[in-house]
Order: sequence, then structure tokens, then C-alpha cells
Amino acid sequence: MAELLPGMLQMSAGSDETLSHQLTRQLRSLITSGRLVPGQRLPSSRHLAQSLNVSRNTVTSAIEQLAAEGYLGTSAGRRAVVTSGLSLMADTAQPKHNAERADHGKLSHWARSLQKAGWPPVYGGRPRPFQPGLADEREFPHEIWGRCLRRAAGSKRLRANRAHNHPALQQTLLQHLAEHRGITAKPSQIIIVPSAQAGIALIAKAMIDAGDVVWVESPGYGGAVVALQAAGAVVAGVPIDKSGLAVRDRKDAPRLIFVTPSHQYPSGQLMPVGRRLELLRYADATGASIIEDDYDGEFHYEARPVSALQGLAASTRIFYLGTFSKSMFADIRIGYIVVPEALIETFELAQRHLGLLASVTVQDALAEFIGAGAYLAHIRRATRLYKVRRERMLGALEAEAGGRLTIDVPPGGMQLLARCATASNDRLLSARLLDAGVVARPLSSLLFHKSREQGLFLGFAAWNEKEIDRAARILGRIVR
Amino acid sequence: MAELLPGMLQMSAGSDETLSHQLTRQLRSLITSGRLVPGQRLPSSRHLAQSLNVSRNTVTSAIEQLAAEGYLGTSAGRRAVVTSGLSLMADTAQPKHNAERADHGKLSHWARSLQKAGWPPVYGGRPRPFQPGLADEREFPHEIWGRCLRRAAGSKRLRANRAHNHPALQQTLLQHLAEHRGITAKPSQIIIVPSAQAGIALIAKAMIDAGDVVWVESPGYGGAVVALQAAGAVVAGVPIDKSGLAVRDRKDAPRLIFVTPSHQYPSGQLMPVGRRLELLRYADATGASIIEDDYDGEFHYEARPVSALQGLAASTRIFYLGTFSKSMFADIRIGYIVVPEALIETFELAQRHLGLLASVTVQDALAEFIGAGAYLAHIRRATRLYKVRRERMLGALEAEAGGRLTIDVPPGGMQLLARCATASNDRLLSARLLDAGVVARPLSSLLFHKSREQGLFLGFAAWNEKEIDRAARILGRIVR
Repeated sequence: MAELLPGMLQMSAGSDETLSHQLTRQLRSLITSGRLVPGQRLPSSRHLAQSLNVSRNTVTSAIEQLAAEGYLGTSAGRRAVVTSGLSLMADTAQPKHNAERADHGKLSHWARSLQKAGWPPVYGGRPRPFQPGLADEREFPHEIWGRCLRRAAGSKRLRANRAHNHPALQQTLLQHLAEHRGITAKPSQIIIVPSAQAGIALIAKAMIDAGDVVWVESPGYGGAVVALQAAGAVVAGVPIDKSGLAVRDRKDAPRLIFVTPSHQYPSGQLMPVGRRLELLRYADATGASIIEDDYDGEFHYEARPVSALQGLAASTRIFYLGTFSKSMFADIRIGYIVVPEALIETFELAQRHLGLLASVTVQDALAEFIGAGAYLAHIRRATRLYKVRRERMLGALEAEAGGRLTIDVPPGGMQLLARCATASNDRLLSARLLDAGVVARPLSSLLFHKSREQGLFLGFAAWNEKEIDRAARILGRIVR
Repeated sequence: MAELLPGMLQMSAGSDETLSHQLTRQLRSLITSGRLVPGQRLPSSRHLAQSLNVSRNTVTSAIEQLAAEGYLGTSAGRRAVVTSGLSLMADTAQPKHNAERADHGKLSHWARSLQKAGWPPVYGGRPRPFQPGLADEREFPHEIWGRCLRRAAGSKRLRANRAHNHPALQQTLLQHLAEHRGITAKPSQIIIVPSAQAGIALIAKAMIDAGDVVWVESPGYGGAVVALQAAGAVVAGVPIDKSGLAVRDRKDAPRLIFVTPSHQYPSGQLMPVGRRLELLRYADATGASIIEDDYDGEFHYEARPVSALQGLAASTRIFYLGTFSKSMFADIRIGYIVVPEALIETFELAQRHLGLLASVTVQDALAEFIGAGAYLAHIRRATRLYKVRRERMLGALEAEAGGRLTIDVPPGGMQLLARCATASNDRLLSARLLDAGVVARPLSSLLFHKSREQGLFLGFAAWNEKEIDRAARILGRIVR
């Protein structure tokens, strides 16, 4: 068949693909399809070149490539030979799609459980009012941020320092946190991760063994629940009251307690200092650690932001968790944990093992953005804006659905909880709202204890007054 | 004591801190230290303002802040009162540093094992020759990249599309992978993660239950071993020969097989097609999945890069893993997995649950960088450069340590393995080299089966010829 080979090849001089590349690809395909069989010798490169009307170099290059890939055997002065042991290739090359698809059920138990978790809620497409958790990215100074990014790209100081937690950001961020959030720590205690979710996953993996009990607020943040469960935690929802999570004597002493004391997720309420101290005392007494998620603690409308739990007692049991995805924009992909000093080294190792590293270029840009005052200026501007939007939202909901919804006015943050005053089905309500172009998360989907509470969790920060009014009208129509 | 209060406060008009902030901080401190006791009433704000010689607004603002934080109770027309239930605060406020430090031993079993894993190796400071795994960042077109980043920052198309795996990058990257690496997939099969390490962690978590057996090459990549172990895998090192990992009848049929067929890590050798097919057949027969880590598959010096395993058989069992941290620069923080089509949805959920998302801004910049041809131009230039450096390295090592070291000439990649010809202690050698400013990873630290192999794993791509010569002289002196 060697003599027939040139006839099986079609070289096209006008193609984008080089002649050598064409020849390599076609020969490979003849071998994998079984039309050139193991042990078969190719014509000499001179002969092949003449037959195909290409240069001998073209042929030699293709043969060398296929030899490198293992399809052909070559030795000096002899014609190339198709490698043996490839005989089952044709079989293997045919994917057994249907049979193998079923076989992919061989996921881990955890992966198989993901669909059932119901988190994250997926809305698809462009964000719509009142999707919670979103900042108004139209109001972010992207131009300044873009300049910071460009300056950081390839900056020599990045190459000189290989730390994954960038000291310049640790330093600047700590100054900000100490001044505005009351954090007490050394810069090296700040571990920079790709997101708050990654931060929870990291803490969970480092602190939880399979079967350990973790308390979360109920209603509470589903993202924490799934990240904790991924590490094997048994998650127990503890009902909140107006002051947040109340520690009480339960049989299941927790290894870890997840709380959102600045603005409880989803109620938006502040945990008062008395309750905070109760929590700290309980943790001290039982040996539990605390994750303090301060996801939108920068935005406070009644007074200055309340100091974080972490700084209250200089406790060595608290993991303070923050993110720039609420205070800047969702895609920044920088979250951070302030870890107890004794655990710095363990957490640095853990983040390497799990690959939970954030771009140092972005970290450097962020250090400049904060250091130059652009961050604080943005926070102040956004706080004024969001405060006005909160008022607008409260007014619009009162006008459109007053009496049907009872709202816990949040002293800060980007969202609020509207409880259904009368018996209703908040999931059905939510589905009907989504059809009408309004996103509202059902309260019942945020409950992690047995409860019949119903309501709607609504974000107000990301939409202007016109958008709020329009969506509130739709919401009012559907709720009534 | 209320009358004494003004005397306990010191207001400084010349301070950077606002008067109201000073007052808030000092009052809070008096409460937490127990000098103001629960139930105690503060003087009226008018009285306090007069005594301190500050405006009444200053006092009112401080009191409101402390009320918001829960330290003070206020009601209209009455003087503020220190909240009760804070009595144990002083105790809690004193961290019991030494006692609690020990208590932090309550890490998970996994976290406690991290120190023992011995990965990653830490060299500290600026990178030195011959640290493996590094690209030469001095040769990267940071200026072009910086422009791509700046353009992507705040781009409207990002806000319109909320996908975490950015379609523009999936599309452009797939075109590149199909043309240059022989990948067969749809764009949506590409899952974008913060790093290759994150990719391994994600696959491991989705495919492995505790106790499942995973095969890795030995010697092999320690980063894979630790990420697989983090998911509970029992890792078995399978000895490699010149063609890489050979499947053979072992009792412990694996759930997953981790291989580096393009340039075996650390030997640099290519897995020939016959061995590749053997591996695929074995996986088909046993139901194992394969992680194909193509970490530096872009750099090939003998012929064109060899097609990936993934495209060889359109198998639905292969996870193809890539990263831009070798082909661009370490800090890019973009890795990716080409997952089987049937698993797209599961992997998208899994990456959300674990927070393994990469910045979409960076993804968008990368899509532009690839689409505009800058990526391929860089790869071609770097390949020429690294090929010259490989020659220089081979020559220098032969001249300085010929006879002592046996080198497997790598057909591509960024590093090589120099085996010790005579009995030696490669860890001791490595420590002495580090003292002299040369990084060389001991082969024995990369072995995951019982073996007495000794050698040095050396990177050559990140250093110019002068640096290579100088470091090789030091290496030769110490090896002799």
C-alpha cells in the first residue's frame, strides 16, 4: 500500500495550514483510522516529496513530528515505519457516548449532592432589580481602577516579592480595617483569597473534620452552608431574633459558629454589643471558633459603621471575613480572612494546597486604589447613594405593598428583608416575580431550621430610583 | 461618677482624629474596661459638651454611635445609660494568649497534616536559578498585557454577562487549544479556575470520595499529590520508565490517574502514542478517569508540540488541565480544565460552592490578548529563547558536572532532570546549593514510591545565558 499512499493524501498550497502541518495531520489520521497499519513502512521521504510535489523538508518535518508523537518509528537511512501496538486505536478513538455518559455518575458523593443544595440561585442574563448582594457597578470608578491595574501589570516590585499574600495590600488593608472596622491584627494575619466564598471554604477545610457541628444563623447565608458542608460539617441552623443569633444550651456544641453581626444576612439587623459578648463568652467556654462574615460592613446609614466583633475582644478564636465584591464590584475576586496570629503559617500552606490564591497584580492595584484614597472616596459616595436608595425602596414598598409586607429597616448594607404579613407562599411569589422581571429571593429558601416564616429578600443598592420605583410597582401588583 | 466623667476624657483639637471619633473611642474604652458600669447614666449631652469644650453635635454623634453599637441605651429626653449585661466584658477583653494558642491546635486533621506534606518547597526572596516551574517574566510583554487589563476593567460587556466562565475566553482559548494542542471540545466545557492547583483540587473534590485510590507518576508532581489527598484520596505512586507511567495489573484499581504526558514532571519526557493508548484502554476497562496536566505543553523544541491525550480519543474520561502561569507569568492566576461535556453543570456548581472563580476582568483581558495574536507571538518568541537556554544549560552542566550527572534531554518544557550518576544524597546537595544561591529540587523529594533514585530537578527557562553559566559553575563546584 506504500505506493498508494500519495494518492491518499491531498496537499493544498492555497490553505492557511502549512503543507507540513497538512501532511502531519493526514498521515496521523490514516494511522489512527487503521488505513496505515502497524509495521507498515512509508515511502522514502524523497519519493513522497516528489509524488506530492512538495519539498523534501516538508516531508521530513512531518515524519519527525509523527515520530516524536510515537506514531512512526525512524532510524537513520531507513524508511519510517508505523509503530506497532497501536492496533486497538480505532476502537479507542470511537467514543462510546451513551455508555460512558452514565458512567460519569461516578462523581464523589459531594458532587452528586450539589444539585440538591439549591445554591447558588441562578437567574441568568443581565441582573435585574431586586437581586440581592449586588453593588451598583455603574457607579464604580472603573477608569481609576483600570489605571491602577495597568500600573500594577508587570510592576518590578511584584517580581521581587513572591508572596502570595501581597504585603503592600496586607498593610494598606489593615490600616483601613483598623480605622473603619476596629480590627486588631498584624498585617501578616490577612490571608488574601479569590472570594469570600473561597475564604469560608478555606476556614472550613482547616477547622472542620467530617461530622463536626457548625452553627449558622437561620435565616442565613446559603453560601456558607454549602461551603461548610463541602468540608464535611453537620450544619445546624440556629433561629435568630431581633439581635441575631442567640447562643443557648443545645446538645450539639459547635466546633464553629458562622455569624454576620454587622448586617445580619438576610435581615440586615445589627448584633448589639451585649449579644456579641455573649457569643464571645460562649465560644470561650466551649472552645468554638467564630467566622465573622462582614460582607457588606462598609455601608452603614445611621451612624458610623459598628466595630467588628474581631476587634471587640482581641479574641484568638475569630476569623474575620471580608470581600471587595460588595464594596467595589462583584468581579474583583478579592476576599480576605483575618486569621488568628498562631494560624498564619497553617493558612498560608492550606491556601497553597487548595489553590486559593488571588492575582498579585490585582492585589497590588488594590493596594494603590486604597492607599490613594480612591477606595474610601468610593465607599463614602456609595454610602450616600445607597442610603437614598434604601429610603426610596422603603417608600416604594410601603406605597405598593404596605400592609402585605413587614420590613425590618436595615441600618446598613445593600438589601432588606420584607416579611409576608399574611400566610403566603414566598417561593410561588418569587417565581411569579421572576416571570415579571423582578428578582426576589424567598425567605423560606434561607431558613435552616424548621420554620414557617415567609418573605422576600430584596437588594436595593444596585438600582437607581427610577428602576426601584418601576420594579416596586410590579412587585406590588403581584403581592396584592 | 457621672460628674467625674469629663475629667476622664481628653479631647485633642489638633489630632488627625475627629473630636467625635475621639470621644466615641474613649467612652467605649471606659465601658469595656469597667470604669463606666452597667446602668450608669452619662451626663446630659449639653453638660458633657460644655465640660469638654466641644460642640453638642460632637457629643450627640458619639452617643448615637455607641447606642448603635449597643454600649449605651438612649430614649428621647433622657440621659444615655450604659447597657447592662456587659459585666463580663473586661474578662473577655483580655485575650488569654498562651492558653488559647494551644487551643488552636483544634485544626482539622487535614490542616494538622500540612506541615508534614513538605509541599510547596519554600525558597523565600527573589527567585534564583535553577528554580523549576518559572517562566522568564522579564521577557513577557507586560505593556501589551497592561493595556488589555485596562481595557477590560469596567468593560460594558462584562456587566451584561454574569457568567463566571467568560464565554469570550472559552471561545478564544478553545480555538487555540484545538489548533495547537489537538483538544476536541465545546467552549462551554472549559472551566476557568484561579490556578492549575485549584483545578486539581476541584477535580479531586468532584471525583474522589475518602479512601479512593489515585495513581500519580513517581517521580511526579507534589502539588497534585497534596490536592488529591486534601479530597481524601489514597495516593499511590506508580514508577515511570522512559515512556512515562505504565499501567499494569495492580491490586488497587484507581478511581483517577494523574499524568503529565506532554513533558513528564519532572523528567521532561514525552509519553509516546502507544503508551497513551494503553492508558486510555486501561481507563476504559477499569472505569478510571484521567487528569492530563499539560502544564507547560506549549513549549516544544524538537518538533511541533505533540497533541494532547484529550484529543486523541475524544474520550469522556479525561480532564485536560492547563494554566497560563507557565506560558505567561506565574501571577496570572488563570488555570482551566476541559471537562467532559456531561459534567459541565456539576463543575460549574462545584466551583461556585468552593469559591474557585477567576476574575472575569482578567479573563476578558486574556481573551483579547489571545485573540489579537499577542499570546501566540509570545509563545513563539519564548520557545526560541527557552530552546537556546536548554542548549546552554545542557552544555554548561556537561562542562561543569559531566560524569556526575546524567541528564534526560527534555524535548520541551522549562526544566530538566539531572540524575546523580554515583551514590549521593540529593537533599544534602540541594541544601548546600541553596546556601550558595542555587535552587535545585532533590529528585528524592519527588518520589512517591520506594526508590533510591537521586538527582536534581532544575529549571532553565527563567534565566539568561549569563545567569545559567554562573549558576552552573556553582553547581559544578558543589557536585564535584
